[in-house]
Amino acid sequence: MKKGIGHILPSSEAIFVDRGVTKANQLLENWNGEDASRFGLVGLPLSKTSISASGAAGAPTTIRKALSAFTTYAIEDEIDLSPRMVTDFGDVSMHVTNLVECHQRIERSVAELYRLYPDIIPILLGGDHSISCPSLKAFAQARGRVGVIQFDAHHDLRNLEDGGPSNGTPFRGLLEAESIKGEDLIQIGIRNFSNGMVYHQYAQEQGVKVWTMKDIQHNRIEDIIAESVKSLENKVDSIYISVDMDVLDQAFAPGCPAIGPGGMDSQTLLSAIYTLAQHPKVHGMDIVEIDPSLDVRDMTSRVAAHVILQFLLGKAKAGN
Amino acid sequence: MKKGIGHILPSSEAIFVDRGVTKANQLLENWNGEDASRFGLVGLPLSKTSISASGAAGAPTTIRKALSAFTTYAIEDEIDLSPRMVTDFGDVSMHVTNLVECHQRIERSVAELYRLYPDIIPILLGGDHSISCPSLKAFAQARGRVGVIQFDAHHDLRNLEDGGPSNGTPFRGLLEAESIKGEDLIQIGIRNFSNGMVYHQYAQEQGVKVWTMKDIQHNRIEDIIAESVKSLENKVDSIYISVDMDVLDQAFAPGCPAIGPGGMDSQTLLSAIYTLAQHPKVHGMDIVEIDPSLDVRDMTSRVAAHVILQFLLGKAKAGN
Amino acid sequence: MKKGIGHILPSSEAIFVDRGVTKANQLLENWNGEDASRFGLVGLPLSKTSISASGAAGAPTTIRKALSAFTTYAIEDEIDLSPRMVTDFGDVSMHVTNLVECHQRIERSVAELYRLYPDIIPILLGGDHSISCPSLKAFAQARGRVGVIQFDAHHDLRNLEDGGPSNGTPFRGLLEAESIKGEDLIQIGIRNFSNGMVYHQYAQEQGVKVWTMKDIQHNRIEDIIAESVKSLENKVDSIYISVDMDVLDQAFAPGCPAIGPGGMDSQTLLSAIYTLAQHPKVHGMDIVEIDPSLDVRDMTSRVAAHVILQFLLGKAKAGN
Amino acid sequence: MKKGIGHILPSSEAIFVDRGVTKANQLLENWNGEDASRFGLVGLPLSKTSISASGAAGAPTTIRKALSAFTTYAIEDEIDLSPRMVTDFGDVSMHVTNLVECHQRIERSVAELYRLYPDIIPILLGGDHSISCPSLKAFAQARGRVGVIQFDAHHDLRNLEDGGPSNGTPFRGLLEAESIKGEDLIQIGIRNFSNGMVYHQYAQEQGVKVWTMKDIQHNRIEDIIAESVKSLENKVDSIYISVDMDVLDQAFAPGCPAIGPGGMDSQTLLSAIYTLAQHPKVHGMDIVEIDPSLDVRDMTSRVAAHVILQFLLGKAKAGN
Amino acid sequence: MKKGIGHILPSSEAIFVDRGVTKANQLLENWNGEDASRFGLVGLPLSKTSISASGAAGAPTTIRKALSAFTTYAIEDEIDLSPRMVTDFGDVSMHVTNLVECHQRIERSVAELYRLYPDIIPILLGGDHSISCPSLKAFAQARGRVGVIQFDAHHDLRNLEDGGPSNGTPFRGLLEAESIKGEDLIQIGIRNFSNGMVYHQYAQEQGVKVWTMKDIQHNRIEDIIAESVKSLENKVDSIYISVDMDVLDQAFAPGCPAIGPGGMDSQTLLSAIYTLAQHPKVHGMDIVEIDPSLDVRDMTSRVAAHVILQFLLGKAKAGN
Amino acid sequence: MKKGIGHILPSSEAIFVDRGVTKANQLLENWNGEDASRFGLVGLPLSKTSISASGAAGAPTTIRKALSAFTTYAIEDEIDLSPRMVTDFGDVSMHVTNLVECHQRIERSVAELYRLYPDIIPILLGGDHSISCPSLKAFAQARGRVGVIQFDAHHDLRNLEDGGPSNGTPFRGLLEAESIKGEDLIQIGIRNFSNGMVYHQYAQEQGVKVWTMKDIQHNRIEDIIAESVKSLENKVDSIYISVDMDVLDQAFAPGCPAIGPGGMDSQTLLSAIYTLAQHPKVHGMDIVEIDPSLDVRDMTSRVAAHVILQFLLGKAKAGN
Repeated sequence: MKKGIGHILPSSEAIFVDRGVTKANQLLENWNGEDASRFGLVGLPLSKTSISASGAAGAPTTIRKALSAFTTYAIEDEIDLSPRMVTDFGDVSMHVTNLVECHQRIERSVAELYRLYPDIIPILLGGDHSISCPSLKAFAQARGRVGVIQFDAHHDLRNLEDGGPSNGTPFRGLLEAESIKGEDLIQIGIRNFSNGMVYHQYAQEQGVKVWTMKDIQHNRIEDIIAESVKSLENKVDSIYISVDMDVLDQAFAPGCPAIGPGGMDSQTLLSAIYTLAQHPKVHGMDIVEIDPSLDVRDMTSRVAAHVILQFLLGKAKAGN
Repeated sequence: MKKGIGHILPSSEAIFVDRGVTKANQLLENWNGEDASRFGLVGLPLSKTSISASGAAGAPTTIRKALSAFTTYAIEDEIDLSPRMVTDFGDVSMHVTNLVECHQRIERSVAELYRLYPDIIPILLGGDHSISCPSLKAFAQARGRVGVIQFDAHHDLRNLEDGGPSNGTPFRGLLEAESIKGEDLIQIGIRNFSNGMVYHQYAQEQGVKVWTMKDIQHNRIEDIIAESVKSLENKVDSIYISVDMDVLDQAFAPGCPAIGPGGMDSQTLLSAIYTLAQHPKVHGMDIVEIDPSLDVRDMTSRVAAHVILQFLLGKAKAGN
Repeated sequence: MKKGIGHILPSSEAIFVDRGVTKANQLLENWNGEDASRFGLVGLPLSKTSISASGAAGAPTTIRKALSAFTTYAIEDEIDLSPRMVTDFGDVSMHVTNLVECHQRIERSVAELYRLYPDIIPILLGGDHSISCPSLKAFAQARGRVGVIQFDAHHDLRNLEDGGPSNGTPFRGLLEAESIKGEDLIQIGIRNFSNGMVYHQYAQEQGVKVWTMKDIQHNRIEDIIAESVKSLENKVDSIYISVDMDVLDQAFAPGCPAIGPGGMDSQTLLSAIYTLAQHPKVHGMDIVEIDPSLDVRDMTSRVAAHVILQFLLGKAKAGN
Repeated sequence: MKKGIGHILPSSEAIFVDRGVTKANQLLENWNGEDASRFGLVGLPLSKTSISASGAAGAPTTIRKALSAFTTYAIEDEIDLSPRMVTDFGDVSMHVTNLVECHQRIERSVAELYRLYPDIIPILLGGDHSISCPSLKAFAQARGRVGVIQFDAHHDLRNLEDGGPSNGTPFRGLLEAESIKGEDLIQIGIRNFSNGMVYHQYAQEQGVKVWTMKDIQHNRIEDIIAESVKSLENKVDSIYISVDMDVLDQAFAPGCPAIGPGGMDSQTLLSAIYTLAQHPKVHGMDIVEIDPSLDVRDMTSRVAAHVILQFLLGKAKAGN
Repeated sequence: MKKGIGHILPSSEAIFVDRGVTKANQLLENWNGEDASRFGLVGLPLSKTSISASGAAGAPTTIRKALSAFTTYAIEDEIDLSPRMVTDFGDVSMHVTNLVECHQRIERSVAELYRLYPDIIPILLGGDHSISCPSLKAFAQARGRVGVIQFDAHHDLRNLEDGGPSNGTPFRGLLEAESIKGEDLIQIGIRNFSNGMVYHQYAQEQGVKVWTMKDIQHNRIEDIIAESVKSLENKVDSIYISVDMDVLDQAFAPGCPAIGPGGMDSQTLLSAIYTLAQHPKVHGMDIVEIDPSLDVRDMTSRVAAHVILQFLLGKAKAGN
Repeated sequence: MKKGIGHILPSSEAIFVDRGVTKANQLLENWNGEDASRFGLVGLPLSKTSISASGAAGAPTTIRKALSAFTTYAIEDEIDLSPRMVTDFGDVSMHVTNLVECHQRIERSVAELYRLYPDIIPILLGGDHSISCPSLKAFAQARGRVGVIQFDAHHDLRNLEDGGPSNGTPFRGLLEAESIKGEDLIQIGIRNFSNGMVYHQYAQEQGVKVWTMKDIQHNRIEDIIAESVKSLENKVDSIYISVDMDVLDQAFAPGCPAIGPGGMDSQTLLSAIYTLAQHPKVHGMDIVEIDPSLDVRDMTSRVAAHVILQFLLGKAKAGN
């Protein structure tokens, strides 16, 4: 028990505590230098790699904070998530001006994490989408053949020549490096007027499976997810979810740099994550492209917090 | 007729008037000290009782103002609500530092209102949700056995020991005081990761009926309402609606203190209120948890204005 | 080719260019004084004519800018819109204090445009809704009998006596001037508590077809559009779409002056425009009532950009 | 005494009252249709006449509200201003689209006010600066030869041909109409890079006295005021102060439409008003060019409230 | 040396470190349960006691954070403040609904602090100004006769009957409790139109020394400070500084609840604190009335951070 | 003469034109590929090199736009600046992810500019302060020995090892590259608690002349400038002014990334620039560290516009 002088407590603890409520941030436990839980959270605060100005480097902080606005209890499944089920390793420290070095730090750091804790399920918080390239390189290196289910309005398959490894290129980088195969990449939520035609053609050439927003309007998301995992489960060793929050309509995710109309609503995304997480081969997730400086009341970070919670809930429910 | 000097009019009236438009704020008539209409509006500007910082005390002002942005005419039913159908009694004046005294003032004031006008249908504007405790105590005292239909993301059944009578405890307070029975309380819109498990258990022990957001996604709201009123109508004398605006998704109610994703959309709530109001035993309503200082363009107060209007429309349509 | 000193480029061009992406603002080409494309864009920056304070005069700028956030490629139809398919004529210059003169300038300017380019399809960017009156007068003068499909929460049929030709009166003005017939006007999205009863009666007397939000909730928008165009196609020479962005729910269009709950979502509007544009008699469109100074991250201008893109896509798909 | 039900009071009165504090809004008493105090306040909510978009029509409301944030007691003179010393006549109602009519309504309304109460000292709240033209026409008509002391970054002497009677032209309009003489106009605070050269030349030709910001930096404001009134007091019947709040530096008046650096600080302006008001021939004042929609926490309206209070204090101190 | 996995560091440490820069937040060291430095910082996050709505409870967090934007080095004195010279004890935990209990917790907590560390110099971060009453009661109890130098626009001497112990009453409470004497209270920066006359009279009756803003305009602040400490130093045991940030003009402290024009600039306040701190009897300070939710870019918290730094600098320079 | 259809004009020109006003943006003329005026403006939109997140890359756009809010006429000198006296070359196009390449592009581009136009006086708009390193390298290469007068709260002399060439290192980079000498660097406005001690020591070792804010409070800025130019004029070939806008107090420049209290006011900076520009050896200037996304109403860009105008005015007045 902590003991203070009078009612003085460390400032992060000097808040109202209700004995009947476990806040969702209590799911996180700072790494003690030795043990780790089944889930490992790492922040990747990099957004200088964005094509447009972005403050997404601030999102690991706001997403963690958003967790404290929610609780651990899922009434719909009557499941209470366990405190300390996620080890919070902290953030990768970034170089000020050398962005290639930043990507290398990410890759080396998560590679080392996977080496130390071979079975850990990473929950990686961007940053912009460029972080998925080094992060998935390390993941594929550690875990074998990887299937990726990407929620996104954009392909993120731009060429690497024009601007280097940016938030428009992560999956191009992975395909070119042969870290993943085109047929193992599934993109959900791709939107009209949000991509160049040649990148759609590239996706088709590479065998990438693309579900557009029209597909989502005309199908149940649970069915899309079922079909997606079915197409991957027998050929890959692990499935990794990459959630670019701009897959959501701007009304639901006002804090993404590249907002627009005609996207998914929050409930659809949350259902998708919940369903996906129940699959035993889903072994990792990243959440990217939230710029807190553009957001309204941290709404987008709040959705991200629910994405994490639904992921943990799916795992808890499936018991895998 | 008011007469001014030249075109000078009292500042609240020096605005454009279109002969063909009745604004919804004209539904309200300030209390003249004697008569009252069938509906009585009272503001309860109290939010120091909130667990987190809240400016919800400002909402009675913004909701009244939001009414002036709308008209009295419901095209879908071709019904024009009548000017002056609601008596605006004003607001309960609050103590600066004694919050128990604030709750007592609310209870005494509405009790006195119900004594003077035994058939009045109250429309109470919070303030935070703590106001429902004193308000419903007085209502139950005056009107007999009361059924409550609560729209909310949260149970609001927290224990009273840890922080006193706050915006997390109103229905716990009512159950403990036996002002209402657990079986007479119906909670609609309860959300994942928004409550402590023990309070869900308490709800179950008390016989509270709980409809989660998943229930709402899989059922028509009109059917949920029908089943709810059916379960109450034969055993209670009056039904009271308590609308915590955070039952809405954050995209639709950005001005609630406890916003989050995965909630109801505005249209669902408005349909529910419209349906409910048509029942002859629905005799009162409160609207709470709007913090105008956090809102975007008073959007949440605008929804509240429509909640009032749909309530009046339901009554007008049903003629009860 | 432009040639700069070192890497210095004109400031509008000194931005990252990806060889595989055509941005949607490249659809626009400034008028060269001679030729015009099939589509002609004109800004009508007038909003002093609004009943309430409005900064909608700023929208032509923000809508054009919003186009640069999107691309020309529609993945769902695998259609890439052609660069330079829209001639941008610029904006009508307004008088500072004489608002009647402003309307005359609009009418004279677009009349002259239609005289010079008899087949041009205008895309007119307000400004407030008052601009539809002079704009449609010129359009009807040039193109014969005109059917109007108006997306709007409001009738905009207020009397002209009380405040002159404002953003509440455009269609009243057109009916009184006999520029259009009541039976040729279809209003989609009219909302409860947003109009005066007498103006609904006036609409009914004039034979205006009204689809309320309840109609939209209970029907597929494609069916409403199909029925609407069918009722017009044989009797009119041209169909003109007037999009008042406040037809959208406030969650989807936070930047309209007259926001409120219970409106359309973005996807429904975009589908309607896409469907409508495929009809060969649809020959023009305006988009009005976006006040960028009230908007959140230009969300409403972004929807407007998609309205333009879906309009062009519908035309491209239908090949008419 | 007002009597409410329980603690329910009219909403404007249901606030904390400290027996020892008189709030400055209590200086205002709504006109009862008969009597008037020595000072008369009128709102002139017109800003469609502005060259750039302006919401200054909202300022009469925010300035009145800002008064409630302050008290009646001037500790530095140990003078307590008297409740009800100002009659609030309300606002001039404006036409929606006819701006010439708006100016006429202003002129006719204040003319009628001066006829009814020949000795009243008007405090007129704009609105944009265009209101000073009709307001001063009526004032000069009623009170004889008028000297004007204008606090402003701009001459406001633009030609009337290019844009009609706008917020750039009020003093040109007055000079051309011979309502005032050039030699009776004193402009204080004129700033570099804020005016056209020809309008400075026009000022010189007309004999207008101009004090630039450099003059203010190098002289005590009390001396400038003393010299100014001395130059007017023997030749004019009344002196009228016109306060364009953009005379202040943008750091002190962030809510003016035409903000910029290098202006006056608040204290200098308040001292000037205090000194001026003590002169027995100072018989009126207007305060213009505050756009509350652009302001930060109503700071500029708060300065305006202090301008009013210093004006009343000067009068109270001088006993004239 | 920090040890992480790869470049992963605890998130608060995963930031750029320049070997040549010591950030001012490094002055703070969390209390280890045993030792304390000469200076002790405690947050008092209470603002429900405010007469108007206030979020000042958030200021201890933002002021601490603001320190990280500055460094430890004072170039003007060529003094580098020492890391860990301030023990950060944390915040007093507050009750949700019982505000009297909150004040008791403050008083008991700091009393206990002074008992454990009799020579500690407290730096207390409000919260609203009500915290100075319990805080000074404990201080006076521990340290003998206390002189108070209060920087404030307001007397804060309101009666305790009307609203209880609020942010308007702290010094009245102290005088009535005889914790301090009127002659030992010096108020600097009192402003026109910011107080009730009767409270100025009360101040005079009690022998309180009042310096108004006019005094500050006409004197050097160093002289006012010198005269103030001279009047206290021989009769009191300790001098305590109470800094209500609304002593500053609204341009310099936009985040105070009760902002207004005509106040002090930042430099004057900082000079005053620097001068005061050099006196050997100055033994404590509080900083109150910053509402971060109203602030612009934490400007007011940044001034507060400099108030702390100037205080420490004064002490370092004087070596007392 | 412009020729449009009716009143349609290119959108940038469809604005009100007053025949008597020349707007300050008319001072700029886009480069025609051949000729250049005496002054050359170049935007350097780079801020990914900032230690903290910065959107300063947006400032070239907002500063140009801010010019349109002001005019060309300086009433205090009765000088009207000439239209087209500044050639606007545009902006240096930046690489998305390679920040060293960005600095090289800046250096090469301005070097080429100085080669083509050997006598041009550059006005360079950052971006963050890192741009001064490549910009001054090229300037020194072209113009011989350069004296630098830097307005700044910070030394910007951090080591280059810890984070590479960032906005904290430009003058360190220049000194280490021997592009400038320490004795030729004058820093004005350096502030307490804004720098590391070792960097002040480095400045002293290098012979850099440092004027702190205390120096500015105790001296006339004109005298500081006179002494500064005197110390440089005989030994250097050219003097270059580097204006980091955070030299201003946060009340006057709310849009700088590193805001704080205790800085310069706008008028002091503007006077300094005006005085400096009159010296015949002052041959260039940059303005940096304005982040428009953090600013309030582009206030800081407005000050920057006045910095440019005062610079041009000084030159015009001195005729050099």
